[in-house]
Amino acid sequence: MSSASADVETQDLLLSLARTAEAIESLLDALLSPKPREGELARPEPLLAAMRHGVLGGGKRLRPFLSVETARLLGGDPEQALRAGAAVELVHCYSLVHDDLPAMDDDDTRRGRPTVHKAFDEATAILAGDSLLTLAFDVLADPATHPSGEVRIALVRTLARASGLGGMAGGQMFDLAAEGRFDGGAPRSLSEEDIRLLQAMKTGALLAASVEIGALVAGVLPGQSAALTAYGKALGAAFQVADDILDIEATPEALGKATAKDAGKGKATLVSALGLAGAKRERDRLSEAAVAALADFGPEADMLRAAARFAAARKS
Amino acid sequence: MSSASADVETQDLLLSLARTAEAIESLLDALLSPKPREGELARPEPLLAAMRHGVLGGGKRLRPFLSVETARLLGGDPEQALRAGAAVELVHCYSLVHDDLPAMDDDDTRRGRPTVHKAFDEATAILAGDSLLTLAFDVLADPATHPSGEVRIALVRTLARASGLGGMAGGQMFDLAAEGRFDGGAPRSLSEEDIRLLQAMKTGALLAASVEIGALVAGVLPGQSAALTAYGKALGAAFQVADDILDIEATPEALGKATAKDAGKGKATLVSALGLAGAKRERDRLSEAAVAALADFGPEADMLRAAARFAAARKS
Repeated sequence: MSSASADVETQDLLLSLARTAEAIESLLDALLSPKPREGELARPEPLLAAMRHGVLGGGKRLRPFLSVETARLLGGDPEQALRAGAAVELVHCYSLVHDDLPAMDDDDTRRGRPTVHKAFDEATAILAGDSLLTLAFDVLADPATHPSGEVRIALVRTLARASGLGGMAGGQMFDLAAEGRFDGGAPRSLSEEDIRLLQAMKTGALLAASVEIGALVAGVLPGQSAALTAYGKALGAAFQVADDILDIEATPEALGKATAKDAGKGKATLVSALGLAGAKRERDRLSEAAVAALADFGPEADMLRAAARFAAARKS
Repeated sequence: MSSASADVETQDLLLSLARTAEAIESLLDALLSPKPREGELARPEPLLAAMRHGVLGGGKRLRPFLSVETARLLGGDPEQALRAGAAVELVHCYSLVHDDLPAMDDDDTRRGRPTVHKAFDEATAILAGDSLLTLAFDVLADPATHPSGEVRIALVRTLARASGLGGMAGGQMFDLAAEGRFDGGAPRSLSEEDIRLLQAMKTGALLAASVEIGALVAGVLPGQSAALTAYGKALGAAFQVADDILDIEATPEALGKATAKDAGKGKATLVSALGLAGAKRERDRLSEAAVAALADFGPEADMLRAAARFAAARKS
């Protein structure tokens, strides 16, 4: 591919990402309206405001984008995929709200704004995260997400499995343990294999689930498409190595959050295991592996290919 | 009813409660086994241990009991109801783990043992709560809970709606706000109506959902049985007034947690609104309203009637 065509591809991707981000923003805004829904007794104001703070006004919305584009590739309904992708985004946002807490990563800034516990307080941030996680499953259970109950419950299963003990939350636990929290403060030295497992759980599982969820909306069960499974896993891994590199190379202004935190905390990253140059090579290898996984698809998969390259090459 | 027959009824109830509690304990133990399930990459040890600490070894297990007995009343499968009730119990336990956190109610003891953040640390307790909530939906999504995907997704919807912003978590937010957290520390004086709304959300919603979930397993949709809806709401309200009274009258040893905390924190309770004697009358009125709601059922509903009386008269 010539560099000119790569540029066009990037512009198409950014335009398409922006369009999905706008649609997701408006859907999340509607889901977090002040009006109680059927079976709800009230929507208490400070909690609702904290949930909105944690969810609205930013983010690349890469996860819903993956759901929408995967569904589109397989002939699924993009509107249904958008709702399912909104559930993934709610899980992603809840995890950021809780990760930022003083007892966890203790961050004051996120997306260029105060974190939820800074803008509100810790108790409200804990409850806001809990409520965002709960809302994710509420959204998936809604018939508006997909007319088939069998599909909706498969979405619930995929999202729950990717998010909990054996996925994202478990990966976060490995991450804290690697900082040495349970060994009197001395960071543990993890093997490269352990770091890859940690990252596959902490970040990879939810990104891979975003792809599977898009496929499910189109009627393709998890694991039924080995190509898409391989694509999601490689993209998820590439995304996290890129994150590790950005923590070193990007400015806090570009990222909208503090940088250079990983080394300070003794976090286990692929930069610490492979060095900066090695990590960049690995990032690009993973991104190309994601692209290669889609070899059997034609140009209709170009957007997903571009997304894999973007996950690696992004500057924020 | 003579006092002798009431005694027999109570003994039957306690025996049946103990049987369900034993079955739930063993089911939760199996759900929290070290072996990763399909789609899980690993089950990190400190997190799994914290989840087990927060869930196993105690509790009346009233919520799964209500699910099982409601399903039994309506001809549903008690084993399926037990699994669905385990999901409700997981949500209940996650809420206790998070409520006990220093930023929330700051409790050191629960069920006579250290709370999760005391036995582990705050970060692990936050992640354990998150993972228990996530596991609840994973359990409901499992075909072992019910063969019909339509029923399972209705279970998800009912549990999510009762647990989140418009239910339990929202009620907890009202509770913290009533302590004056957002008004510089001065407790707000809530109206009796506001207190009832707070309690209907904080405690009532999940207890009422336990009944609805049992009905769903038996194929009865939420709201389809006005009698069961009224029963669940009245039982939930009676349970919370009884809790308010126990906070004053019980010993920490009997409750397995600190007592006399509500007045100290300026918590809004029906004891503060109605006085102790008034709250007891209200508790008994609500419990009898729950019993009365089941008037159209025969002796096959005796266990649910006994459960409503137990929710009010329990000593711990």
